Parts: sequence; C-alpha cells; structure tokens
Amino acid sequence: MPEIAKLDFSAWSCPLPLQDYPNIVMGHGGGGKLSSDLVEHLFLPAFRNEVLENLGDAAVLSPVSGRLAVSTDTFVVQPLFFPGGSIGNLAVNGTVNDLAMSGARPMYLTTGFVLEEGFAIAELARIVQDMAASAQAAGVQIVTGDTKVVEHGHGDGCYINTAGVGAIPDHVQVGPSLVRPDDVILVSGTIADHGVAIMSVREGLEFESAILSDCAALNGLAAAVLEAGGNGIHAMRDPTRGGVGATLHEIAGAANVGMVLEETRLPVRPAVHAACELLGLDPLFVANEGKMIAFVAPEAADAVLVAMRKHPLGADAQSIGWVVAQHPRMLVAQTRIGTNRVVPAQIGEQLPRIC
Amino acid sequence: MPEIAKLDFSAWSCPLPLQDYPNIVMGHGGGGKLSSDLVEHLFLPAFRNEVLENLGDAAVLSPVSGRLAVSTDTFVVQPLFFPGGSIGNLAVNGTVNDLAMSGARPMYLTTGFVLEEGFAIAELARIVQDMAASAQAAGVQIVTGDTKVVEHGHGDGCYINTAGVGAIPDHVQVGPSLVRPDDVILVSGTIADHGVAIMSVREGLEFESAILSDCAALNGLAAAVLEAGGNGIHAMRDPTRGGVGATLHEIAGAANVGMVLEETRLPVRPAVHAACELLGLDPLFVANEGKMIAFVAPEAADAVLVAMRKHPLGADAQSIGWVVAQHPRMLVAQTRIGTNRVVPAQIGEQLPRIC
Repeated sequence: MPEIAKLDFSAWSCPLPLQDYPNIVMGHGGGGKLSSDLVEHLFLPAFRNEVLENLGDAAVLSPVSGRLAVSTDTFVVQPLFFPGGSIGNLAVNGTVNDLAMSGARPMYLTTGFVLEEGFAIAELARIVQDMAASAQAAGVQIVTGDTKVVEHGHGDGCYINTAGVGAIPDHVQVGPSLVRPDDVILVSGTIADHGVAIMSVREGLEFESAILSDCAALNGLAAAVLEAGGNGIHAMRDPTRGGVGATLHEIAGAANVGMVLEETRLPVRPAVHAACELLGLDPLFVANEGKMIAFVAPEAADAVLVAMRKHPLGADAQSIGWVVAQHPRMLVAQTRIGTNRVVPAQIGEQLPRIC
Repeated sequence: MPEIAKLDFSAWSCPLPLQDYPNIVMGHGGGGKLSSDLVEHLFLPAFRNEVLENLGDAAVLSPVSGRLAVSTDTFVVQPLFFPGGSIGNLAVNGTVNDLAMSGARPMYLTTGFVLEEGFAIAELARIVQDMAASAQAAGVQIVTGDTKVVEHGHGDGCYINTAGVGAIPDHVQVGPSLVRPDDVILVSGTIADHGVAIMSVREGLEFESAILSDCAALNGLAAAVLEAGGNGIHAMRDPTRGGVGATLHEIAGAANVGMVLEETRLPVRPAVHAACELLGLDPLFVANEGKMIAFVAPEAADAVLVAMRKHPLGADAQSIGWVVAQHPRMLVAQTRIGTNRVVPAQIGEQLPRIC
C-alpha cells in the first residue's frame, strides 16, 4: 500500500467557534453561521484547493477531454474507525476505485455528510483528515460538499456520500458486457481482508497477527493494467460488498457467460482464512476495498499478471479462473478435493454495513 | 409550477421478489440478490435510460463541451412527504438548481440512498416515482446510484444524496465574487413557501388556503434570465436553507460588498405571512426550493425582471434591493416604518431538516 501522507493536525485552523461546540449540534446543518464555521475551519483547511475555495453551490471545473465517468457511493460502515483505515479513507477510495474500474482517470470528488447530533467534532476532524490524505494519495480533488445534521437517534455518528468524476481516454474500452469466453480472471491480491478486519473489531476478536483492511486507491494499479494489457483488458471491477463471488456473478449476468473458479488459487492470508473459519464466513463473499479483478484476453493475461505483481498493490496477484460459454450466468468452482460445485449467488450480505 | 408528468405506477415491474419483502431488510443494502432486485424492479423501471442500464460501477457519458459544473446535496427532510412534494422531488430539484445557479445546463444526476431497516418499499417506490418525474420535468438523467441500509433506529426512513453534472457554456460567467456595487437584487417569486409548508405539517396547522412547497426545477428560468441579461447577470443563487437572508449574507461576504433590502418589496403570500407570525418565524430566513435570486447590472435589470415574469416560475418576481460599496458584508433593511435596521446573520437555522 502506498505511503499515505500524514497531515499535520496541529496546523489546522480551529479557533473558538468550533471549540465552543465540541459536538455537532443541529445548527451545524442549518446553512447559517455554524455551517460556515464547519466549512471554514474544518473542511476548507483539510481539502484546500482553488475550486473548493470559491464555495459556490456548484464547483466549476475546466473542460474535460474524453468520455466522462461518473460514480457515487454512500458509506455507512460501522465502526467508523477500524484496523487499516476509517470511513474517511473508504469514502474517497471507494469512489476513486469505481471510476478507475470503468477505465477512467479519477479527477474530482464531491462529498455529502449526514452527521448525528452529538457526534464529536474531534472524530469528524479525524475522518476529514483521512479523506484529505486519501484524496492526496489518489491524486483527486474534493471540489464541493454538503453537510446535514439529523437528531440524535436518527443516524449513527457519520454517514458519507461521495460522487466522483473522471475522464476515460478515447482508446480505453472496458465494461462488463465486453467479457467473453476464454478471458482469464485475475485478482490483484489477497481477498476478504477488509470484511474480516471490520468483523474482528465488531466481534472483539484478536488474532496473532493483526488483520488490516486493504482499503486503498486502485487508480494507479488500474492504469498499469491498462498499459500492459491494452485492448486485451475487457473489464475491471473492485470486489467490494459481496466480495469476489458477487462480482463474478454480476459480470457473468451482464455478459451472459459462465465462469470457472479455481478455488485453490484464491489468495487468502492465513490469518484471514482462520478468522473466516471461526466466524463462519466464506472468504469468496467477504468484502475487499483495495483489490481489483480483471477479465483479460488469454494472449494478454501473462503480461498483465506480471504488471500487476510489479505494482505495490498487486504483489499477490493471481490468475483464479476463466470465462466459459457453457453454463451462462453460473459460477462453478473447482474445489480443493478435485470436484466441481456450483457457487450460488448470495441473497443478501454476510456482513451488514461493511462499507 | 410546470406540470410534472405523472408516471403510471401500475405499469411498474414489481413481481414477487419485492412483494416478498414489503419492507426494507438489511440485505437490500448487501450487494447481493436483494440489492439486484431493488435495482431491477424499482430503480431501473423508474429511471430508465441507456447509461443506467449498463449498471457499471460508474456511468460512462459522452464527452461534455464547455466547463463542467459539479454539485452535491444530501436530503434529510422530515416529513418525507409534504404539501407540494416529497424528498424525491427535492433531491432532484435541489441539485438541478445548484447546477443551474452556476450557469450550467444540468445534465446528469447520481443518487445515493440510505434506507432504514423496516422502511416500507411502497413509500420508497413513491419517492423514486417523484424523483423520476422531477428528473423528466427538468430534462436530466439519473445515470448511476447506490443503496445502503442501516439498522432500525439508525436512520429516519430515507436519506437521499444526489450529485449532479452540468456544462457551462463558454460565454456564461457568473459567480458570487462577480457581484458589484449598484447591482440590482431580483427575486423570482414569493419567499418562505417551502419552509412554511413543511412547518405547517410538522405542527399540524391548517390554514384557510393550503400552503404548498414551491419545490421546482429552476434551470428553465435560469436560462431565460441568462438569455435576457447576458453579461449583466453577475450571480444567481437559490435561497434554500437559511432563506433569502442567508443567501444575501453569503454573497455579501464572498463579494465583500454591502446590501440594502427594501423590506416592503419582499413578495410573501398572505397565508405564509400569517403562518410566520403564528410560528414566530422571519420569512427572510425561511427556506425556498423553487426560487432564485439574481444579481444584475442596473442597465439589464428591467429586461431581466420582464423575462422572469414571463416564465411560469417567475410570475411574482420582484426587485428587492441593491448592492452597495458601503458597510461591506452587512445587510441593511429599509423597514416598513421607514427606518433602517441591520439584519444579522443567523447562527443556525430556524427550522431543522427542511431539505
């Protein structure tokens, strides 16, 4: 994971108005002086950039060349802080990754906060600091935002929506419907780290080695994959909610193809594997926040795998299966004991509020 | 207010999967089959367009010419349904209006739902229907979205974030910092309707004539204003949270100018005026959701006022004051009894969760 620059918290401009209110009050969402204080003393110093400083109702940006990619995600993860990151890191990286998976260069983010009355402003400041650090690491700007406050008992501290805008270079053509039989399925590293990290905090579990969320921005890795694979890259996807399993099912449906998964090749950290056994989870359906799956034409697969492994976020990359014309919309796993089994889609999610 | 096309609810594709679950369950936010059902049977039929149907993590859009405008807002209004509209209408019109006020032609919206476990899917369907109708009326497409579910007691039925993308024509230059002394301040119609409509429902008040929210998309009116005023239009703003008062204060701060308000010229419906007296509210600081303020060079002001009044959303437009170099960042009202008073900025909002 790339070194995320730490911001100097002590340098923040946080004078009396915010100190007068150690916790969020309804007025912070009212559009008056308290709202302005939050913007001026918290959001602006953290996210500082020319566009944001105009403080218009809309951010005005230079013309973008190429097709536009637009994405949104809301983050309701519990707990807000977990080993390896926070809701702030997730909120930035999640939308950066959705853009990157569409082949776009992520450029701008918007952010909308729903804060619960009574939420500690110090915690909000930590979250905002994490957002700023992740945005800086990913090379994107947070250009506009909005804050609403709801009464105590109608939220859970902090929910964050981000929406993102990126540009897709003319020569890039990727998408679920372009996936075709014989494509090789590559995963960029160990799976289920994020979900297990969250779950271990919730359940109060301690393992010999700490399990950290893999939360990271994938735009650099995606660019390396596109560079190495060219037109051989048919689709990219970050397997978040529902994990690798849900992603494979979704793409199989979109492209009307079947998929074969070599279960023994799925990279899973031993500690994560042990935790999944303990918690009764199938790592195939546990969320990731810093992994990508690429569907690659067979002739390009080796070069792409090499490129993935060269990138700091892809060191544990693996080829985990391939696409078939048979059994469309169905995922078949070759198991550890040499048999085949149909892997059904999950109805819901094993772990609620994972992102 | 323009006639909003009604969708035929009975034509919706809502077969067993959703009927099995009359209320939202955690799994609807899990990214699995229940999530897909919600997308397939509720969101897609309502918002149907080519981009959305690709169901990628990001929406891929044609190149946009001109500068980009990007905006976001989260909506937490209570109640979800009120005289004159719903959170669905607000969520679309609010972001459309933010884009329009920056001089942009609104084009695309994203939407992020935070649903509370137990929320009735029939209510969600009404909200989604309202969003679709407002998007159609405003001429924008909802191109991508996200749904999260939080446990009962951690939400309030439904929160909606929308983010929007629009294009600003090259010749349009508007913004708070362009406002200068002698600019005329125009408002497009009666103020405080939205806030009083919400408040009358919350307080269980009944008036002789029903007070309706003014919730509407302002992009048509803004285009007419720009057409009539050309370079004489210096800034536009929709006075939502905090009302006309907060907007004037914000712009006075951004442009470092003073403002004079002719209190007697503020258009206020008699029923709204009576309700404000009863509730102890100052209509100057009560939210609007379908009104705009324009700061216009004096030589263009008459033509712009005429153009506003010709538009169905601007029939009650008024000139309400002007910009001065004196008393920068200060709002002075000429009162009904002929005196001047300084109008201070509000600390919070008179009415929480108004949008």
